[in-house]
Amino acid sequence: MIDKVTMTEQIIAAKLEKGLTWEKIGKDLGMSPVWLTSACLGMNSAPAEKAEAITEYLGLGTEVCTALKAYPTKIWDQAVPTDPLVYRLYEVVGVYGETLKEVIQEKFGDGIMSAIDFSMEVDKIEDPKGDRVLLTLNGKFLPYKSW
Amino acid sequence: MIDKVTMTEQIIAAKLEKGLTWEKIGKDLGMSPVWLTSACLGMNSAPAEKAEAITEYLGLGTEVCTALKAYPTKIWDQAVPTDPLVYRLYEVVGVYGETLKEVIQEKFGDGIMSAIDFSMEVDKIEDPKGDRVLLTLNGKFLPYKSW
Amino acid sequence: MIDKVTMTEQIIAAKLEKGLTWEKIGKDLGMSPVWLTSACLGMNSAPAEKAEAITEYLGLGTEVCTALKAYPTKIWDQAVPTDPLVYRLYEVVGVYGETLKEVIQEKFGDGIMSAIDFSMEVDKIEDPKGDRVLLTLNGKFLPYKSW
Amino acid sequence: MIDKVTMTEQIIAAKLEKGLTWEKIGKDLGMSPVWLTSACLGMNSAPAEKAEAITEYLGLGTEVCTALKAYPTKIWDQAVPTDPLVYRLYEVVGVYGETLKEVIQEKFGDGIMSAIDFSMEVDKIEDPKGDRVLLTLNGKFLPYKSW
Amino acid sequence: MIDKVTMTEQIIAAKLEKGLTWEKIGKDLGMSPVWLTSACLGMNSAPAEKAEAITEYLGLGTEVCTALKAYPTKIWDQAVPTDPLVYRLYEVVGVYGETLKEVIQEKFGDGIMSAIDFSMEVDKIEDPKGDRVLLTLNGKFLPYKSW
Amino acid sequence: MIDKVTMTEQIIAAKLEKGLTWEKIGKDLGMSPVWLTSACLGMNSAPAEKAEAITEYLGLGTEVCTALKAYPTKIWDQAVPTDPLVYRLYEVVGVYGETLKEVIQEKFGDGIMSAIDFSMEVDKIEDPKGDRVLLTLNGKFLPYKSW
Amino acid sequence: MIDKVTMTEQIIAAKLEKGLTWEKIGKDLGMSPVWLTSACLGMNSAPAEKAEAITEYLGLGTEVCTALKAYPTKIWDQAVPTDPLVYRLYEVVGVYGETLKEVIQEKFGDGIMSAIDFSMEVDKIEDPKGDRVLLTLNGKFLPYKSW
Amino acid sequence: MIDKVTMTEQIIAAKLEKGLTWEKIGKDLGMSPVWLTSACLGMNSAPAEKAEAITEYLGLGTEVCTALKAYPTKIWDQAVPTDPLVYRLYEVVGVYGETLKEVIQEKFGDGIMSAIDFSMEVDKIEDPKGDRVLLTLNGKFLPYKSW
Amino acid sequence: MIDKVTMTEQIIAAKLEKGLTWEKIGKDLGMSPVWLTSACLGMNSAPAEKAEAITEYLGLGTEVCTALKAYPTKIWDQAVPTDPLVYRLYEVVGVYGETLKEVIQEKFGDGIMSAIDFSMEVDKIEDPKGDRVLLTLNGKFLPYKSW
Amino acid sequence: MIDKVTMTEQIIAAKLEKGLTWEKIGKDLGMSPVWLTSACLGMNSAPAEKAEAITEYLGLGTEVCTALKAYPTKIWDQAVPTDPLVYRLYEVVGVYGETLKEVIQEKFGDGIMSAIDFSMEVDKIEDPKGDRVLLTLNGKFLPYKSW
Repeated sequence: MIDKVTMTEQIIAAKLEKGLTWEKIGKDLGMSPVWLTSACLGMNSAPAEKAEAITEYLGLGTEVCTALKAYPTKIWDQAVPTDPLVYRLYEVVGVYGETLKEVIQEKFGDGIMSAIDFSMEVDKIEDPKGDRVLLTLNGKFLPYKSW
Repeated sequence: MIDKVTMTEQIIAAKLEKGLTWEKIGKDLGMSPVWLTSACLGMNSAPAEKAEAITEYLGLGTEVCTALKAYPTKIWDQAVPTDPLVYRLYEVVGVYGETLKEVIQEKFGDGIMSAIDFSMEVDKIEDPKGDRVLLTLNGKFLPYKSW
Repeated sequence: MIDKVTMTEQIIAAKLEKGLTWEKIGKDLGMSPVWLTSACLGMNSAPAEKAEAITEYLGLGTEVCTALKAYPTKIWDQAVPTDPLVYRLYEVVGVYGETLKEVIQEKFGDGIMSAIDFSMEVDKIEDPKGDRVLLTLNGKFLPYKSW
Repeated sequence: MIDKVTMTEQIIAAKLEKGLTWEKIGKDLGMSPVWLTSACLGMNSAPAEKAEAITEYLGLGTEVCTALKAYPTKIWDQAVPTDPLVYRLYEVVGVYGETLKEVIQEKFGDGIMSAIDFSMEVDKIEDPKGDRVLLTLNGKFLPYKSW
Repeated sequence: MIDKVTMTEQIIAAKLEKGLTWEKIGKDLGMSPVWLTSACLGMNSAPAEKAEAITEYLGLGTEVCTALKAYPTKIWDQAVPTDPLVYRLYEVVGVYGETLKEVIQEKFGDGIMSAIDFSMEVDKIEDPKGDRVLLTLNGKFLPYKSW
Repeated sequence: MIDKVTMTEQIIAAKLEKGLTWEKIGKDLGMSPVWLTSACLGMNSAPAEKAEAITEYLGLGTEVCTALKAYPTKIWDQAVPTDPLVYRLYEVVGVYGETLKEVIQEKFGDGIMSAIDFSMEVDKIEDPKGDRVLLTLNGKFLPYKSW
Repeated sequence: MIDKVTMTEQIIAAKLEKGLTWEKIGKDLGMSPVWLTSACLGMNSAPAEKAEAITEYLGLGTEVCTALKAYPTKIWDQAVPTDPLVYRLYEVVGVYGETLKEVIQEKFGDGIMSAIDFSMEVDKIEDPKGDRVLLTLNGKFLPYKSW
Repeated sequence: MIDKVTMTEQIIAAKLEKGLTWEKIGKDLGMSPVWLTSACLGMNSAPAEKAEAITEYLGLGTEVCTALKAYPTKIWDQAVPTDPLVYRLYEVVGVYGETLKEVIQEKFGDGIMSAIDFSMEVDKIEDPKGDRVLLTLNGKFLPYKSW
Repeated sequence: MIDKVTMTEQIIAAKLEKGLTWEKIGKDLGMSPVWLTSACLGMNSAPAEKAEAITEYLGLGTEVCTALKAYPTKIWDQAVPTDPLVYRLYEVVGVYGETLKEVIQEKFGDGIMSAIDFSMEVDKIEDPKGDRVLLTLNGKFLPYKSW
Repeated sequence: MIDKVTMTEQIIAAKLEKGLTWEKIGKDLGMSPVWLTSACLGMNSAPAEKAEAITEYLGLGTEVCTALKAYPTKIWDQAVPTDPLVYRLYEVVGVYGETLKEVIQEKFGDGIMSAIDFSMEVDKIEDPKGDRVLLTLNGKFLPYKSW
């Protein structure tokens, strides 16, 4: 059995060799590129049929398929990320966290947006003054309960 | 001159007394509720005409207007936020940060999504299985340059 | 309007003066003592009818009622708690966290136990060799989704 | 002599090969699945007869038996865990820690719930609106003493 | 009702005014000076009869008595203490922690020394080459249990 | 030349093979088991004659003897230890640190208990209600000086 | 494919063997020595033509060229750097950060200096009292926007 | 005597009342606006004649003058700054620190750029594609010495 | 009774009013200026006769005298100091710590330099190329003991 | 080319084999033992002639000579050192940092003691009551400048 790190290495190598993009793999397999990437980087488990589709598409063995299905332990090392792309997202949480709490709870009541029953997309908006990144986060609202 | 904390207290008090929501204030003034809330919580400065519109709408004095226009120092105390609503956003950055880097840089090249030339919206999707929160982040792509 | 800290002080004072326990208040009002305590300490918001019942029972004013209904920002200062009673719970998470992940995910699939759609009870088991504390945590299982 | 990490690898490999679950092993051997998993992950030592039973059941050698009996040094690396399943438990300690202190000490007097003279179970409550996880923690109450 | 900080201030003031030492108070009241000091500094609760004896001895009011009986939340701010006297004790734990684990568990089996069912004394050994401090820690051994 | 880690491994292996305990080695060689264990775990250097006695007793080579004599750099990785046995000692320092400062300085004047000119013993007190661990710390008092 | 660490090792080895300096390579290839060094140390990606020019100049293979073009994940381990040269820069940010915010925002309005659309140069000013280092940072001003 | 915080408040108030900028004050008094701001924010002491000139120019009393001359203790609370303008500077140190060490030490030998014998300027470069901030840091090179 | 902070304020005020320096006070009273300053800043207790001499010299009351004699709890907030003068000392410990351990233990055997039985002086060496600071630390060597 | 770690290993091995001390090597080569040790432990670079003298004296190859000349990146892992000898120095900085700032700046004006233009010596003072360690730090005073 191989672990998630080896799985990712084999997937990245196959992807490079075949000249593929996450976008194209996702489109061809009917999966969101964000979710597909997350599963291939080892941060989400893939349901059996999706794991098989990915493995077959990339021409990889059953070990990769098994590793894709495994439930990952989600670990990140940097409480405050240093890579500028990731830090900017962290900064958005720091600057707008209290604001989002105000606006979401005004609209929905006391509760949170789930990060488990959750999906996310990345889109590109072309703009002559500079293209724009559009991130869409979609999470189920979970109300607090009293008992 | 009053500081941002006092400004926020006066705005919240006026909003409560008039029975307003961020949603309604934003709609009536033609401003995004997210941006409006952020400015009123003191995490963004307001351009003069917007600061005046907000102050007048809420029936507050010029001190609040001046405070809304002031450039804030953006500080947050918790490197890892504890409030569950804000933590879930932090968790999204931790779990999906590397994934977003892969997908964005595949689409745009080496660079980042700006958190300054940036806007964000919150929407509610009604769903019989449980309503969903839709967060949309829109930031300019900034390519790295060589020199 | 009073904040949650002042609310808690007034509730504790009234509780002491009347010689009440969380147990008794909860029983008389048909609320779980754990939830009741959490709301009175300011870590959960109370639905309107419960806030009114608590306030009336303790003979407190509408300000306390309003504060009980407010949505709290949940903050704790100590990443690692020092009080021995709370530390032992933290230690349980440290020692058994990986074990619980194994056992829960074996039983339920990839996902988590919600801390939002969640309740908890404390019971006392009398035992001649030393009484025992029984904590029961009851949370909805939330499966990860692919998209 | 093998260390606990190698022991766990051999146990997990044997368990996979035989298609077993912690649930089934625990049931067949008359041990709680939570305790069994904890011992097999190396966070608790096993009494001699239990270590032998586990080793024999899985068809493993005496080195694994010896390693199961060894007294572990309990170490966890993340003061604040990142895996969402474990974080939710940490969040429960953060949100409800003070509440549990109030309720337990009201019921038992000044003291703590032991994490040493302690057991824990995981149950599944089937529910058409979504199954629920039931965690039961059972620890001896230890009163503070004066001297 | 006064809090533990105010209680400590009143006790220290009365002790100074009467020219007492912890040693003498403890001896006169039949309490260990270490436990007595800990209760008076607010880190342990006092049983009713001891709280009354201390209060009466020092000529203080019922508020101090009530505060002595309250169950404290034990908090320390410095994960690594800076005061040299306290740091040396921390250093002993760092240097000899693994050693004590070896020696205690060899003598007693897998388990810990309780810090709750626990007492401690300080003695002075006069020595012409320099007096020595003798600290005696006495804690119940708690064995781990399997289940 | 071997380092302290290899030294410890060879000593532990010889001790296991011969079925010895720290207690017995210490008794046979006229050394305190605590000090002996500390030297064998690499946290203290051994004087030449003691290093030779230990090495000969265990039937080990001169490399181990040389390593026992080397002056160690004392490093511990966890500012707050996680193993429950060691954490309880850390908790004692946190809970009783200020108390010990009061009591020691009342008895001795302004100064500290040395952790260098220092010894420690572990004893077992048998008790039908549960055996007790007795730790005795003995350190020279060092007064602060003015100049 | 080689990673950035191996790439840097090969570049440093070739640079040493040929007796080159960053200054000379930069001058010969028409690139800023600072940017060139940053790309060769793996903290910036190189556009294709620059990657090829560097590789060819140093007589290295296509693997180095590919690695130079790869988009790096920018990670630094020390939140507070210890090397004195780097610490002094960190100190400048600590001492003058608030000052720079005042002066830049007075000149440009509310916004920031980009660290992405950014370049930097190092110059030497000879001085009989001691040569001086001149660092020039040049970043695009990005104004905050309202929406 | 007033402390630096009060001094800064009085200076900022006088500056606002007179409608001045740091730029203008600096120009009129022949001082760099960066240094002037730093002294007025309390992070540098002012030589007597400069302190007097600033105080007189702003029409403030001798207490402000005395406070400007006092030697400050330079403290910053955030090891990693959160304000985006200051964070970008921190990011530059993180991303380019090792690069600057390479380039500076290649040019000057083993040593550092002083942050004490140091000056800094801020300039604005107008640019139709977006104005640019130019920061110039000028520090004496200090070579390491052997002895 | 006044605390050490108030004591320091009164001493600093008297020192300023009388136009004294630590140097002069120390010389006149026959005390080292370093020790004197440390006692007046509240980081060391003063023996009775020295406390009285200082108080009388400065014309202060018995409360200051009592506060000077009190045994301080030595606390510093910044694990890594930010003030440049203090940071440089911290840097010396970081850069040369291992070196000093080698050199001291080569000269003295296994042990440490006491920071309690300790004194320190500051001298000025005039030098046309720039004056030099001479710090002299004098601490008793404490050998480790075996037992 | 060998790195500094390998260099140190070879130097230590040669030193042991020849039965040398830092003291003797320094004396024979006319270098301070502290500086020599620091260079051999890899925390300072050696000028060419010194690097050659050291290498020749120890009978080592040119690779060691090259490594001695390389400019090190000075890194230490422990913000708060744990080894007692090094911790005591850290404690001196914590306890006396503010005092040294007062005394040095009183003598020299606003500025710092350089840790770059710096030297240090270790001496032994024999004393029948216990030998003493004398550390002498000698650093250039660097005045802050205004501009």
